[in-house]
Amino acid sequence: MGWRNLFMVAASIIAPLAIQPAMAQETNGPVIRIAELVIDPAQMAAYSAAVKEEMEESIRVEPGVVALYAVSIKGRPNHLRFFEMYADQAAYESHRTSPHFKKYVEVTKHMIRSRELFETDDFQLSAKQR
Amino acid sequence: MGWRNLFMVAASIIAPLAIQPAMAQETNGPVIRIAELVIDPAQMAAYSAAVKEEMEESIRVEPGVVALYAVSIKGRPNHLRFFEMYADQAAYESHRTSPHFKKYVEVTKHMIRSRELFETDDFQLSAKQR
Repeated sequence: MGWRNLFMVAASIIAPLAIQPAMAQETNGPVIRIAELVIDPAQMAAYSAAVKEEMEESIRVEPGVVALYAVSIKGRPNHLRFFEMYADQAAYESHRTSPHFKKYVEVTKHMIRSRELFETDDFQLSAKQR
Repeated sequence: MGWRNLFMVAASIIAPLAIQPAMAQETNGPVIRIAELVIDPAQMAAYSAAVKEEMEESIRVEPGVVALYAVSIKGRPNHLRFFEMYADQAAYESHRTSPHFKKYVEVTKHMIRSRELFETDDFQLSAKQR
């Protein structure tokens, strides 16, 4: 999908919360999670298909899943970094118990060499203003 | 600043590029960088002031700096993760040579215990659609 939807819609989800990013993690506001995964290179294609399906399904059916960004470290295509934005803590917890997430976990459990998940607190979130 | 500007303006910068995220890193499109820093806890307040000033200045004066997000790992407020979005490679390189960035590097060089910078390739960027 294009970057337009990526950000325009994130705004439409987040804006109504009308909170300061610095307070986000201490209120009922947006929750950001980071995940660092290393995938078995021999199973990268299968993992990629499974996780992309799960990401798109989460965005499609879960109102509180704002954005799921994944990038690979340049030169290490099986080293993935996820930057995940949820409307609030309840949305994150709902996501973790969703059928599509559980399916992803089951399907990919033997494809993932290592996984680190990080809860975060907002520090500084800066972007262009008009 | 609020989440509204954060995303609405990112969209206004990225949308005109009209490219697919999967191609972003291989074209003249958006560039995402990740940085992982550990700050000297005794100098965290000074580092925080310096980096937040530099982030806001970068957004204010550099057209190609789309968004600079920073979060801390929960329970480790001196362990920072940066997720940085630039309009293109030239914008990133311009940022690295800007006076405010060079000032930040100079001012904080003895505050940072460790720093890892990662170039990335897009893998999957999913967000709400209407």
